[in-house]
Amino acid sequence: MQRTVFFISDSTGITAETIGNSILAQFEGVQFEKHRLPFIDDVRKAESAAARIKTRYEQTGTRPIVVNTMADRSLGEIVAASGGLMLDVFAPFLGSLEDELGTKHSGAVNRSHGLVDFEKYEARMNATNYALAHDDGIDVDYSQADLILVGVSRSGKTPTCLYMALHYGVSAANYPLIDDDLHKLELPAHLRPYRDRLCGLTIDAQRLAQIREQRRPGSRYADLQQCRWELQQADRLLQQERIPCLNTTHVSIEEIASKIFDRFGIERTMF
Amino acid sequence: MQRTVFFISDSTGITAETIGNSILAQFEGVQFEKHRLPFIDDVRKAESAAARIKTRYEQTGTRPIVVNTMADRSLGEIVAASGGLMLDVFAPFLGSLEDELGTKHSGAVNRSHGLVDFEKYEARMNATNYALAHDDGIDVDYSQADLILVGVSRSGKTPTCLYMALHYGVSAANYPLIDDDLHKLELPAHLRPYRDRLCGLTIDAQRLAQIREQRRPGSRYADLQQCRWELQQADRLLQQERIPCLNTTHVSIEEIASKIFDRFGIERTMF
Repeated sequence: MQRTVFFISDSTGITAETIGNSILAQFEGVQFEKHRLPFIDDVRKAESAAARIKTRYEQTGTRPIVVNTMADRSLGEIVAASGGLMLDVFAPFLGSLEDELGTKHSGAVNRSHGLVDFEKYEARMNATNYALAHDDGIDVDYSQADLILVGVSRSGKTPTCLYMALHYGVSAANYPLIDDDLHKLELPAHLRPYRDRLCGLTIDAQRLAQIREQRRPGSRYADLQQCRWELQQADRLLQQERIPCLNTTHVSIEEIASKIFDRFGIERTMF
Repeated sequence: MQRTVFFISDSTGITAETIGNSILAQFEGVQFEKHRLPFIDDVRKAESAAARIKTRYEQTGTRPIVVNTMADRSLGEIVAASGGLMLDVFAPFLGSLEDELGTKHSGAVNRSHGLVDFEKYEARMNATNYALAHDDGIDVDYSQADLILVGVSRSGKTPTCLYMALHYGVSAANYPLIDDDLHKLELPAHLRPYRDRLCGLTIDAQRLAQIREQRRPGSRYADLQQCRWELQQADRLLQQERIPCLNTTHVSIEEIASKIFDRFGIERTMF
C-alpha cells in the first residue's frame, strides 16, 4: 500500500517532517511518498499548496495525508479544502499549555528553526570549526575537546562529530586508529591525557569492508580480512584501556550521538 | 516566568525536542529550562525518570511539562505519576491514521532516528565527504555538485553545506570569494560552467565584522570597512552575474538550507 504525505509549514517544515516521519514509522506496512511544502505563509501560497494536494488526490484516488505546522488557522482551512487528511501538529497541545501557563499562544509563524540567537549561532559555528580542525587527526591538541572519538577509518567518526557540533555545540574531535597504533596496542601519546573524554566507535567487519570497497575498490584497505584484523585490534586496545565503545553498524548518526551524550552525561539540548 | 520541561523518549528524543521546542516557541513570555531524557525504554528507567521529574516539581513548586514520545503507554503512565503535565505527542494522531490506513500502529519503539537504512546512510556519508572535500575552495572540480555556495569568508557557507549534506544528502560545495575575485568583479573560471547551480550568501557588515573579530581580533580581516567593501563588491558581482543571493544574518542554518532548496526546486526530504 502506498500513500502520499505532504509536510506543510509556514517556515522550514523541519518540525512537520520530524514528527510526521515519527508517526508514519509506526505504520510499517505502508509505503509513503513524501513531499515538503515549506514557507506557506500567505493565502496565495496556501491555495497553490491546496491545488497541488488536490491534484495528487485525483491522480492517486486516495486522499493524501497532510502534516500541518502552519500557525495561522485560516491558512489551514484553505489547505483542508483540498480534501487531504489534516493532521494539525500543534492544535492538540496549545489549549492545555495555555491553561497551564495562564497565557495565550502567540500564533506567530513557527520560528523554532528560523530566527537566530547570535550566542547559540556562535556556539554552533565554533563547535563546527573545532570539529573540522580536529577531524581525522589533523590537529591533535585535544585540550579543548568535549569528546574525542577514536576508531578505525570509516567507522563513522567524522559525521558523528559534525552532527554533535552542528546541533548541540559540542566540540568533538576524532582520531583514526592507524596500523601503527593497532600493532603496538598502545594509545597514541596525545590521546593519553584525555582518557576520560575518549569514546570508541566500532562497526561490523562486513559492513566496514563494504563502505571501504565503495571508496577504494579492490584495495587492501577494503579487504575483509584487513577490516577484521583492524577491528579486532581496535577492540582489544579499547578494552585494555577501558574506553567505552559503541557499534555504529545498525544505528543512525543521530542515535550514536544521543547514546554518546547519554554515556558521558552530556545533557545539552538541541539548537 | 520560568517553567521546567522534560523531553522524554524511548529513543534519541529528537522528535520530542523538535516538536516541543516548536510548541513552546509559541509562548514568548515564558522561559523554559529544558531537559532531555532519552532511551527510556523499560520500567526501571521510566521510574527513575518519574522520580527526577517529581523532584524538580518539588524544588520549583510548579509542575513540569513533559513532552512524551514513548510508544509504550504503560511507560507513559509510570511517568505521568510524577505529577508532570503530560503532552503525548503521538496519541492525538494515531487513531485517525489507523482509521485512514485501515491498519493498527505497531507500538514499536520510535525508530525514526534509530535503525539505519544502508542506502540512505551511504547517501549522507557520500554527501558529507563531498562537502568536506569541496569546502572553502579545496577541490574546485564542481562537476558533481548539486549546489555551490559562494560568498565572502564567514558568510555561513561551510555550516550550511555540512547541514545540507548530513540531513538531505545534497552534495554542496562552497567557494570563498577572495580579494582578487572582488577586485576584478569576475566569476572565477572554475565556477563559470556551473552558473545555474550557484547560490550567493551574504551577511550584514556589522555582524560579519563581529564574527571575524572573534576569529582574528584586531585584524584587517575583521575591520568593519574591509567587511563593508568585500560585501559590496560581492553583491555587485552576484547581481551582475544574476546569481541568487540570500542574507544569513538573522536566520538559522536550517532556514537558509530550506530557502536554498526552495529556490532551486530541490525537494528531497530529510534523512
